[in-house]
Amino acid sequence: MAASTPPREDIVMEDEEQRPPLTRALLHRSATNNISQVAMVGSKACPIESLDYEIIENDLFDQNWRTRAKADQVRYVVLKWTFCFAIGILTGVVGFLINLAVENVAGLKHSAVSTLMESSSYWTAFFVFAGTNLALLLFATAITASISPAAGGSGIPEVKAYLNGVDAPNIFSLKTLAVKVIGNIAAVSSSLHVGKAGPMVHTGACIAAIFGQGGSRKYGLTWRWLRYFKNDRDRRDLVTIGAGAGVTAAFRAPVGGVLFALESLCSWWRSALLWRSFFTTAVVAVVLRLFIDLCGTGSCGMFGKGGLVMYDVSTLFDDLMTYHLKDIPTVILIGVIGALLGALYNFLMKNVLRIYNVINERGRVHQLLLAAAVSILTSCCLFGLPWFAPCRPCPTEPGAPNGSCGSLNRFRQFHCPPDHYNDLASLFLNINDDAIRNLYTTGTNDVYHPGSMIAFFIASYIFGILSYGVVAPSGLFVPIILTGATYGRLVAMLLGNHSDLDHGLVAILGSASFLGGTLRMTVSVCVIILELTNNLLLLPLVMLVLLISKTVADSFNSSIYDLILQLKGLPHLDGHAEPYTRQLAVGDVVAGPLRTGCQGGIPVGCHFVLCSSNFDVKICTKKVKLY
Amino acid sequence: MAASTPPREDIVMEDEEQRPPLTRALLHRSATNNISQVAMVGSKACPIESLDYEIIENDLFDQNWRTRAKADQVRYVVLKWTFCFAIGILTGVVGFLINLAVENVAGLKHSAVSTLMESSSYWTAFFVFAGTNLALLLFATAITASISPAAGGSGIPEVKAYLNGVDAPNIFSLKTLAVKVIGNIAAVSSSLHVGKAGPMVHTGACIAAIFGQGGSRKYGLTWRWLRYFKNDRDRRDLVTIGAGAGVTAAFRAPVGGVLFALESLCSWWRSALLWRSFFTTAVVAVVLRLFIDLCGTGSCGMFGKGGLVMYDVSTLFDDLMTYHLKDIPTVILIGVIGALLGALYNFLMKNVLRIYNVINERGRVHQLLLAAAVSILTSCCLFGLPWFAPCRPCPTEPGAPNGSCGSLNRFRQFHCPPDHYNDLASLFLNINDDAIRNLYTTGTNDVYHPGSMIAFFIASYIFGILSYGVVAPSGLFVPIILTGATYGRLVAMLLGNHSDLDHGLVAILGSASFLGGTLRMTVSVCVIILELTNNLLLLPLVMLVLLISKTVADSFNSSIYDLILQLKGLPHLDGHAEPYTRQLAVGDVVAGPLRTGCQGGIPVGCHFVLCSSNFDVKICTKKVKLY
Repeated sequence: MAASTPPREDIVMEDEEQRPPLTRALLHRSATNNISQVAMVGSKACPIESLDYEIIENDLFDQNWRTRAKADQVRYVVLKWTFCFAIGILTGVVGFLINLAVENVAGLKHSAVSTLMESSSYWTAFFVFAGTNLALLLFATAITASISPAAGGSGIPEVKAYLNGVDAPNIFSLKTLAVKVIGNIAAVSSSLHVGKAGPMVHTGACIAAIFGQGGSRKYGLTWRWLRYFKNDRDRRDLVTIGAGAGVTAAFRAPVGGVLFALESLCSWWRSALLWRSFFTTAVVAVVLRLFIDLCGTGSCGMFGKGGLVMYDVSTLFDDLMTYHLKDIPTVILIGVIGALLGALYNFLMKNVLRIYNVINERGRVHQLLLAAAVSILTSCCLFGLPWFAPCRPCPTEPGAPNGSCGSLNRFRQFHCPPDHYNDLASLFLNINDDAIRNLYTTGTNDVYHPGSMIAFFIASYIFGILSYGVVAPSGLFVPIILTGATYGRLVAMLLGNHSDLDHGLVAILGSASFLGGTLRMTVSVCVIILELTNNLLLLPLVMLVLLISKTVADSFNSSIYDLILQLKGLPHLDGHAEPYTRQLAVGDVVAGPLRTGCQGGIPVGCHFVLCSSNFDVKICTKKVKLY
Repeated sequence: MAASTPPREDIVMEDEEQRPPLTRALLHRSATNNISQVAMVGSKACPIESLDYEIIENDLFDQNWRTRAKADQVRYVVLKWTFCFAIGILTGVVGFLINLAVENVAGLKHSAVSTLMESSSYWTAFFVFAGTNLALLLFATAITASISPAAGGSGIPEVKAYLNGVDAPNIFSLKTLAVKVIGNIAAVSSSLHVGKAGPMVHTGACIAAIFGQGGSRKYGLTWRWLRYFKNDRDRRDLVTIGAGAGVTAAFRAPVGGVLFALESLCSWWRSALLWRSFFTTAVVAVVLRLFIDLCGTGSCGMFGKGGLVMYDVSTLFDDLMTYHLKDIPTVILIGVIGALLGALYNFLMKNVLRIYNVINERGRVHQLLLAAAVSILTSCCLFGLPWFAPCRPCPTEPGAPNGSCGSLNRFRQFHCPPDHYNDLASLFLNINDDAIRNLYTTGTNDVYHPGSMIAFFIASYIFGILSYGVVAPSGLFVPIILTGATYGRLVAMLLGNHSDLDHGLVAILGSASFLGGTLRMTVSVCVIILELTNNLLLLPLVMLVLLISKTVADSFNSSIYDLILQLKGLPHLDGHAEPYTRQLAVGDVVAGPLRTGCQGGIPVGCHFVLCSSNFDVKICTKKVKLY
């Protein structure tokens, strides 16, 4: 290895004396792209481009940097912040539109079904329900399959891979953005057990990436001053910021959004990024708040005050939100069982996705058939199961389940007599946000029947697994929260008098534990839950549950996003290198001779993709990876 | 430069073939310490040690790593988490003890003064007040000056310098810890205008560092398995975690604590650290919560339910905590003025500290005299000014200022007739926490007289500047929050009917803006404020204020911590290198010949201290700094 290296002095002399003329723009990617490679990954040839870890600082770059006018630098900084502001505004608007559309489409469907049920036209109600669901899901599948297959699924794994240094084709194109937004609205409205958080993250990242590649030659949009952003580092920063903005738009959780990007997406972080990212999520929060104020006057159709996800548990029943030292064993139990359920969920999901992949690869007809099958099964189950649930009289005491019975969004009458409600229908025949809100509401220990909870938990668990693989933009986050909340309520019911904890509180802990068991995030999920529930006093419990569930579940398999990444064939480097790579030097794995000054003892698998296709390592850092 | 370099091949051959026998512990710092240097910094020779940026991964290290048994690795991981847990518990306990002591010592003093005032023994009351204050502060100054001068001041600058790679002598010793805790209790109880947040951060970091150097030979505590932590990286991780825990203990803000460590202290961060740090702060939060539960029964003397800092504004007067688009200009105004006040504060502070340094360098007597002068001046002002404030009748309407009139901690009667209160005395003759709580309380627009507010603002501003330089453990955070809250109230009063914002809300914004203007932190301060007030809905406004105030103030001078770092003579590298360093290569600044493989184009000022005293650069990374 050492013998094939040219003496170090030669390189130095070359660097120092044979400087090329400094005439072309240096931050511009060169026409002959020598930093990408076509990797053969997964089952088919997939043109994956690797990204630069940092701006390559060499003499040319320094020269260019020196010659930049002060005005250029100011313009660059102003532009960076303007982009952040614009990303915040746009992500906020898109996030609001998705919510508005889902609330209205699903709301119309549910109110039509309710009206039909009241007039005892049960079969008609079912056909309206199932028909609408089928049509919506087929529409989503059709546009995804035919226009932009990259828009399918959650999008978080792709964003994660991008921020890890791997650019899959078309994940951030304008087409993908459009399909993601419209397809997700249709899929969520179709009562499919999928969420809108993941697609929202992808949407935010997409918006940011489109800003980042603003100077696209394809659409004739090349401005000279945009060239500063035509490097991988600035684009990656923007995508990170966009993804955080997406989380914020999904959950109205600005701090959670930043931490989500930091914890689970990024392989790389700077404190300057923290600030810009937080600025962007704050803009998103302001935009959402303005829209909510606007809609408070009732001008947004079915989109009411509680329209955007926010299960505020802080102001109501404050004395119910208490816990003591003796509740710790309960909390640990919730964490452990949640971890086991989560690990099993990931295992089943992985295998179901494998089967689905086989079906989906056969072509569009098979994709549509699969979607139709899942939709019909879901509709039958959602409409069928509530018939077995008992009718219960509406609670009459003041302060009890807020807006219960009669209010459109909360409790459903279904086939029950007036002033009664069907608890299972209240969960099944609502959009997921409202179902979660129902479950999180404190002071409702006696509202749900244990049998209904068991039925809903099993259905929610199974449909979560079955629904994700359908070719349509579909998120994982919200179904997992919902399943976890049901699991929490179930635990609380089983414990009965052994615990004083409010069932709504245990539902929140159940969500946390199931999220920890499947997504394996701790800090960001914790903060998101706290921001969703607007109650910071829960923090110690939520944190404890998350730590336990993540630790236990990690001993079985890896996070659901990592499993999906594997299935998609996108290479991903963890923060921790595989042990065997510590023994490898770069020279051990490359075929040709190395032309570099640092082939001494650098471990191969580290943090980020740096090497070029012909293994001319350009900078000596420890962040080196070779496929 | 290039000519003096030996050919690269020689080094490689040496590495590969002349490996030394692998008999000694490799992570152990070698006896002949070749990675430290004595730098001549500031006015006197100060032995500052530079720290390793990362564990040096060479063949020896790899060899050692390979030979480690699986059990060793498990023990290492278990130990890491155990340390975090222990740091959390200890920091929580110490934090609680500081609060408990301050509340009781200051509470006793204030109740004695109140009793004397009620019996019209005004002069006796004054002498008791001033005498106690003087005794307490002189005690704090005496122990700091004689036992551990490193315990003086906030401690945050030192921690920041340490995490930036510079180890000042004795900053993390057991003596420093003891003096910091006891001295801070005395200083805060002495009505000096200083806080306990900074010292708490230093305390947390100290506890962590003592764990990190657990295997100290000096005290005969060397265990074999502790040697894994005897490297700079693991110690730095622990100190980071400890500092975050300290912030949490100060403000009961677990998320804020983590973000504070991440944003304003660390030069280096990994996502694994995020998780461990959050675990530790969650432990601190649980410990504090347990103690508060314990003290709820009244067994902690004057330490009541609201004892630990937490200005909960979420549950009371929820409808007052609203804002709309038309309030944005007000918010921007608050941000801009706060920035100007903050920049001026930093400027004045820097100059006062310079004068104080000249006095303090003359010896202990001068230090004690300075402390005495400041204490007497403070006491006179605190006791004298309220005489000019008008007596106001206690509000009688239900729901008005909580616990007003008669309750010990909130409003003071002072020289007023019964059922009346003196608003200025309510702020001056309370501990800072209670004063802030008074100012943050919503629905109290008419409780304060504008004249009192002006007097309190000016006094608070000036005493904040005058008090910090005294040789005693003293924090900056709480006085700044208090001054900012007063400034906010003042703005709200001046705006009068032009704004519908509640004065308590504006006080919070005022605090945010003044914090942004002085400390120049955004995300962490924002989260800390949200956690303090337990109201996440404020986020957009707080964020906006912070962004504006930081941006405006940054154009005048640098953050107060950086100014103190400069005054202390501790070298510090910002994330952004100075422009001129981009043009420098290592070879341009070292005196001797370089023996390294990477002297090509590496910029000198980057992120972290790496180079050894004789400039044998050990690893090629871009993180290189030379003094």
